[in-house]
Amino acid sequence: MDSERLVELLEQVRQKQVSVTQAVLRLRHLPYEDLGFAKIDHHRALRQGFPEVIMGQGKQAKEIAAIVRAMRRRNANILVTRVKGTVLVVCAGTSDIPVAEEAILTAQMMGNRVDRLYDVGVAGIHRLLDNRHRLDAAAVLVVVAGMEGALPSVVGGLVDKPVIAVPTSVGYGASFHGLAALLGMLNSCAAGVTVVNIDNGFGAGFAASLINRV
Amino acid sequence: MDSERLVELLEQVRQKQVSVTQAVLRLRHLPYEDLGFAKIDHHRALRQGFPEVIMGQGKQAKEIAAIVRAMRRRNANILVTRVKGTVLVVCAGTSDIPVAEEAILTAQMMGNRVDRLYDVGVAGIHRLLDNRHRLDAAAVLVVVAGMEGALPSVVGGLVDKPVIAVPTSVGYGASFHGLAALLGMLNSCAAGVTVVNIDNGFGAGFAASLINRV
Amino acid sequence: MDSERLVELLEQVRQKQVSVTQAVLRLRHLPYEDLGFAKIDHHRALRQGFPEVIMGQGKQAKEIAAIVRAMRRRNANILVTRVKGTVLVVCAGTSDIPVAEEAILTAQMMGNRVDRLYDVGVAGIHRLLDNRHRLDAAAVLVVVAGMEGALPSVVGGLVDKPVIAVPTSVGYGASFHGLAALLGMLNSCAAGVTVVNIDNGFGAGFAASLINRV
Amino acid sequence: MDSERLVELLEQVRQKQVSVTQAVLRLRHLPYEDLGFAKIDHHRALRQGFPEVIMGQGKQAKEIAAIVRAMRRRNANILVTRVKGTVLVVCAGTSDIPVAEEAILTAQMMGNRVDRLYDVGVAGIHRLLDNRHRLDAAAVLVVVAGMEGALPSVVGGLVDKPVIAVPTSVGYGASFHGLAALLGMLNSCAAGVTVVNIDNGFGAGFAASLINRV
Amino acid sequence: MDSERLVELLEQVRQKQVSVTQAVLRLRHLPYEDLGFAKIDHHRALRQGFPEVIMGQGKQAKEIAAIVRAMRRRNANILVTRVKGTVLVVCAGTSDIPVAEEAILTAQMMGNRVDRLYDVGVAGIHRLLDNRHRLDAAAVLVVVAGMEGALPSVVGGLVDKPVIAVPTSVGYGASFHGLAALLGMLNSCAAGVTVVNIDNGFGAGFAASLINRV
Amino acid sequence: MDSERLVELLEQVRQKQVSVTQAVLRLRHLPYEDLGFAKIDHHRALRQGFPEVIMGQGKQAKEIAAIVRAMRRRNANILVTRVKGTVLVVCAGTSDIPVAEEAILTAQMMGNRVDRLYDVGVAGIHRLLDNRHRLDAAAVLVVVAGMEGALPSVVGGLVDKPVIAVPTSVGYGASFHGLAALLGMLNSCAAGVTVVNIDNGFGAGFAASLINRV
Amino acid sequence: MDSERLVELLEQVRQKQVSVTQAVLRLRHLPYEDLGFAKIDHHRALRQGFPEVIMGQGKQAKEIAAIVRAMRRRNANILVTRVKGTVLVVCAGTSDIPVAEEAILTAQMMGNRVDRLYDVGVAGIHRLLDNRHRLDAAAVLVVVAGMEGALPSVVGGLVDKPVIAVPTSVGYGASFHGLAALLGMLNSCAAGVTVVNIDNGFGAGFAASLINRV
Amino acid sequence: MDSERLVELLEQVRQKQVSVTQAVLRLRHLPYEDLGFAKIDHHRALRQGFPEVIMGQGKQAKEIAAIVRAMRRRNANILVTRVKGTVLVVCAGTSDIPVAEEAILTAQMMGNRVDRLYDVGVAGIHRLLDNRHRLDAAAVLVVVAGMEGALPSVVGGLVDKPVIAVPTSVGYGASFHGLAALLGMLNSCAAGVTVVNIDNGFGAGFAASLINRV
Repeated sequence: MDSERLVELLEQVRQKQVSVTQAVLRLRHLPYEDLGFAKIDHHRALRQGFPEVIMGQGKQAKEIAAIVRAMRRRNANILVTRVKGTVLVVCAGTSDIPVAEEAILTAQMMGNRVDRLYDVGVAGIHRLLDNRHRLDAAAVLVVVAGMEGALPSVVGGLVDKPVIAVPTSVGYGASFHGLAALLGMLNSCAAGVTVVNIDNGFGAGFAASLINRV
Repeated sequence: MDSERLVELLEQVRQKQVSVTQAVLRLRHLPYEDLGFAKIDHHRALRQGFPEVIMGQGKQAKEIAAIVRAMRRRNANILVTRVKGTVLVVCAGTSDIPVAEEAILTAQMMGNRVDRLYDVGVAGIHRLLDNRHRLDAAAVLVVVAGMEGALPSVVGGLVDKPVIAVPTSVGYGASFHGLAALLGMLNSCAAGVTVVNIDNGFGAGFAASLINRV
Repeated sequence: MDSERLVELLEQVRQKQVSVTQAVLRLRHLPYEDLGFAKIDHHRALRQGFPEVIMGQGKQAKEIAAIVRAMRRRNANILVTRVKGTVLVVCAGTSDIPVAEEAILTAQMMGNRVDRLYDVGVAGIHRLLDNRHRLDAAAVLVVVAGMEGALPSVVGGLVDKPVIAVPTSVGYGASFHGLAALLGMLNSCAAGVTVVNIDNGFGAGFAASLINRV
Repeated sequence: MDSERLVELLEQVRQKQVSVTQAVLRLRHLPYEDLGFAKIDHHRALRQGFPEVIMGQGKQAKEIAAIVRAMRRRNANILVTRVKGTVLVVCAGTSDIPVAEEAILTAQMMGNRVDRLYDVGVAGIHRLLDNRHRLDAAAVLVVVAGMEGALPSVVGGLVDKPVIAVPTSVGYGASFHGLAALLGMLNSCAAGVTVVNIDNGFGAGFAASLINRV
Repeated sequence: MDSERLVELLEQVRQKQVSVTQAVLRLRHLPYEDLGFAKIDHHRALRQGFPEVIMGQGKQAKEIAAIVRAMRRRNANILVTRVKGTVLVVCAGTSDIPVAEEAILTAQMMGNRVDRLYDVGVAGIHRLLDNRHRLDAAAVLVVVAGMEGALPSVVGGLVDKPVIAVPTSVGYGASFHGLAALLGMLNSCAAGVTVVNIDNGFGAGFAASLINRV
Repeated sequence: MDSERLVELLEQVRQKQVSVTQAVLRLRHLPYEDLGFAKIDHHRALRQGFPEVIMGQGKQAKEIAAIVRAMRRRNANILVTRVKGTVLVVCAGTSDIPVAEEAILTAQMMGNRVDRLYDVGVAGIHRLLDNRHRLDAAAVLVVVAGMEGALPSVVGGLVDKPVIAVPTSVGYGASFHGLAALLGMLNSCAAGVTVVNIDNGFGAGFAASLINRV
Repeated sequence: MDSERLVELLEQVRQKQVSVTQAVLRLRHLPYEDLGFAKIDHHRALRQGFPEVIMGQGKQAKEIAAIVRAMRRRNANILVTRVKGTVLVVCAGTSDIPVAEEAILTAQMMGNRVDRLYDVGVAGIHRLLDNRHRLDAAAVLVVVAGMEGALPSVVGGLVDKPVIAVPTSVGYGASFHGLAALLGMLNSCAAGVTVVNIDNGFGAGFAASLINRV
Repeated sequence: MDSERLVELLEQVRQKQVSVTQAVLRLRHLPYEDLGFAKIDHHRALRQGFPEVIMGQGKQAKEIAAIVRAMRRRNANILVTRVKGTVLVVCAGTSDIPVAEEAILTAQMMGNRVDRLYDVGVAGIHRLLDNRHRLDAAAVLVVVAGMEGALPSVVGGLVDKPVIAVPTSVGYGASFHGLAALLGMLNSCAAGVTVVNIDNGFGAGFAASLINRV
């Protein structure tokens, strides 16, 4: 959008002719700046609550961290004001932790309070049941698991909160790089479980954050 | 749970020694009634906000409707008191409508206000864009699509709300009974989209309802 | 084997020149009777402890029952003398019951004591935990589950007995006719779980029986 | 073809007994030169409008560039005389650019005017719609996308020109190295979209050039 | 679009202030009429050159024929004026003919001259080579084949015209309902071959028609 | 469990008020020690007869050996007292040996007597038949095979003992990293064969040990 | 070919100017008769030794029988003169017999002596070994098996003759309609085994006949 | 076999009481020498006409060559005496040559005359047709092709000899490491084509040699 129109809009906000809500709505549909080769979608952060993520194969959790940290510097004062429910990130085995951390980092950067419950795989169900109060305390749950991907079903049966399942590529042989866990989660017998892509901790943290705002 | 303990708990509630919230929490973890052959999980409705669904191949939307309607009769006065945001169910083609209706029915029975936006597939993108205000007005979106399953990506890019994608088995040849749509949705380039099983309108409506309560 | 050699062997047994154990071993490797078109493997029952099963698509549990019942008539006095541990057949949902019954029937006909624990899917984990004493009492467990196939992992984590997992084709969409459950079970995070083919209740009951004799 | 027959044919052309069109047709079906081990198909350039491409795993875009540049040196004067419509190469994300560039290079070397429209993925649909005039101006479109591969459907719904879709192996997890994008494009709800192999920018550029000549 | 704007535009055309070309372009992006439940996209025929096709599983070639015939009645005078090159539809076996006929019908209804060359599968390569003049005479080729789907590669090597390959579900065993033919065509060693979905004769005819207009 | 309760239990054992069997049962369900980040499941060894295995991609047989050896140092006197039947590990080709050795090591560490029969693939069936007495002498059999995975079917037909089949990723081309062997074993025509994950020698040895205790 | 050229050729044969071998070779490459719609390839029988087979889904063994019987009436005197080695058709289970019979019928009609060995699956390996003399007596072997498809490997290890493996769709669950057997056969550890499509008894009989003529 | 029995047999041969043919037959079924760890199957060369091949992932053509060359030194005088028909190895592209050479080397070492016809892929069908006389001259054909794997169908339609198809892993994207070529060949429309595993030149050469002896 050209600067005149932007100034005009902001002035209307200042004059109380346009509410903040209306202003955000209007800004959300304004065009992006054309920089020639790559088009930076400056308003995506407004539309989706988070700046555009440049997808790349082999992108690591620490790279995401770097991006997110940089973003926080600019917007820190916005984030601290938010008060929301807790996002609980549950994870089955220690091999699943990197994906869980990616989800946590993303949710934290988007202003959520985050709790973690690790190493509570279904083959030792007591460990999960002993932490039932933490499941109950959460507003949204992200459940990360590889191998057979059974943990989201058990968690989903214990809570009445949204559960986002993240299959990981942990496993070998017939796990087929996360396919077994993915199919398991899509077929969860616990109603209300939704699924993101294999190893997509970022997507799970992002979705949890959108839900936490509802 | 045996009846003494239940009476005791309810009495405590009545005497204000236990809050309703605490009571619900405690009830949620109590055991089920053992009826011999099949175990009816009376408390699942409390734990998950919806009674246990008996999974069966070939279960039709109208059967779900019957079940849900029966449940409503008993609980109608609970449901009417809820005020929540709107669940918008968007669907790509007319062949996807039965799955969309299953989601709508489920969400309605769980006390949500529901809006529908049909026949706005990506090959005619104007129809979707013309309804942008309805996308903005929703608290949670369920997006139902078959064939290439592209609609959730487009919708997810336009809103900053949770989007639940439902692949349908509509299509032929290399759609492989919904696999193409499922993979498309799992790989959505719009962050924050989560996915349920193929044709699982019920699961999407259920998850949307859990989210709408957060 | 021609009758002379058989008579000779049996006489040696009678004369105590050959022990019963040796006789069984020798008989186990003797040839079958050639009936022209189809070769009836009369000794397979000895070699494998159960007569040859003629594989046919669409073979139903009740047909298996008929076959097994016919066999019992001839061998009843053998079976009743066996005293073994209990085979516990656990099953996740009511849709899985036909496959579970096929396993039970097979195990019973092979002389095992059988116990059943039904409708204890992982989305309602309390129902399973409340029956822990029955899990502990079993010598061998057969666990039948469709959808995500998570039950064997939970059961396998609670017991130190052999667990045979049977995936069923129950489910829809991305269950791909039992593939999701099969992969889930092969990737079980509980060590010691072994798996048979989709819907193969017969094979599970058979294997459980072989194990129960060890 | 032996040289006598070639000289004879060219002489007939020179004497106007054979038209240039007829001569090209006849030459197109003449045999190749047998060099012993590898058979160089000298006439393929005539038959297909481009010299034979030696398929090799791991062939890079810059190798194709080298080959094509070498060819241009010999045929430059032919190419400059061609006047055709524009081939527009559209691409979803920055990771898809190498494949898009392979298509562009191929189309350029075959004498086409080429325009590019990059980074217009479906999650930011405004960027695409703001360039609608460039879509309308093209004679043929090549649309390159990874992940869910939804862009060709949207583009195909906006134009009445041939659209060649190129799935890329960009993505991770359940993208299965381009399979998700490939299936998405084959199931496109926009009629008239055709598809080439994963990452096959060369094939798309080649096909676009053949179409541009029709 | 509301009627005032339409009248205004048409008047401008009548007054020669706006060319017909400009008018078509403008109309192409105008909105559709909202009929309540289903949205009829009246302008899609202009945007894509063919009215919207309502995708349905089990839609038969004769239903397509009925739709197309009905459309022709209204637009016959438009179609007859078009003069284009010939679309040649080639098909491998007699079992592939229904799909080929769907392509032919679609191309004819969109105003193309169509030629057919049937039963020229690669196991009898002479039959194809004897019709080389018909291959050369075509402007665009649609090649329909099941089983191993090899015909498009051979045809693509003989011509320098666009070739649209249509895999059919003809075959059995490891043809996997057209998957073998689909993969074969995507991996064609003849550059310039593009592919549509399995059994999608309509899509091939549509794409051929778009190409024939370029 | 806190130490008081443990002391109390042990004292009861010492006073003969609680049998050893009861004590083991009770201990088996006691909670784990919470160490903060990772939860060490001290009682899993009791529940499952083997300490918790931390799943990691790329874990080698020799790492398993190191873990198991360390465990043996602490528990040596327990293991030597066990007297069980023999676990026979059979393997098809020399390439399958590492997986077979993983099974052997696991079974040995859990106190089993182990015998090995190597390089007896089905293409040289005499080698297997010449060792029939060793098959007969075993209490449980683990059969390891790659490529077509046919060996368990043949072995399963020769014995009336439990057979655990382990597919290996040995092979190339259409073996698809063990998938061919896995499917072959799941479809075994010999009843009573159960299957573990591809290359999962550890799981097979573990299951064999559980069976050997029955 | 027009009749003059045919008469001329036959006359040359009669005058001994052209040998029968040369005549057959020449006829083999002559064109087919063009009947308009479908092209009957009259010479295919000469080129391939069997008239063209019109592929159709759902073609039954008895239809093949009818076709072949009709052909035999015309060519009986040719067939009886052939003396070749024996084609042995081996089959694993009784469910595989229809496919085996299709192979036998085809081989017989092409003038081969055929022997059959049925119901010798690998789970009862003695039955196969007792018929070793029949395996040795054959010139070519066709081995038909469903489920895990292990029989060709065992047979291939016992003989030094060409073995053609035919996977059948017999089985259930993870046999995936013959895929397990197909992969098993392609990965056979017995060198020299070649494979045809699932249930393709005709193709196996045809190939066996071509081999038997070498 | 113990040496007495061997000497006895050879003496009988020398005394003409046993023919050479009978002797070979008898030797073929004698046991192997047990060397402890690995069992060397000395008689496999007699049973299968080639010594046992130790399967290993990553085994290269030159390793096979070394093995085969070593074997030839010992048996050279046997091989030179054989006179058989020609094995023609045909290959589609230059990338397929290593696999073709593996087939050639194997066939040569087993005493066959071999001819090669390279770089005759179906996209340049003239090159193949120009060599029709070489196709006709062969007794057995091995056809090696990657990508869509169409060459065996075309060759199979031109000859009445056994054709062994070898899919190669050459290609990219949706070739899925040779799967596309494998499926194409299994679905060949030319009757009489049989298939070996992906890249299995050794197996094809071996099978061709067995056929050439019939």
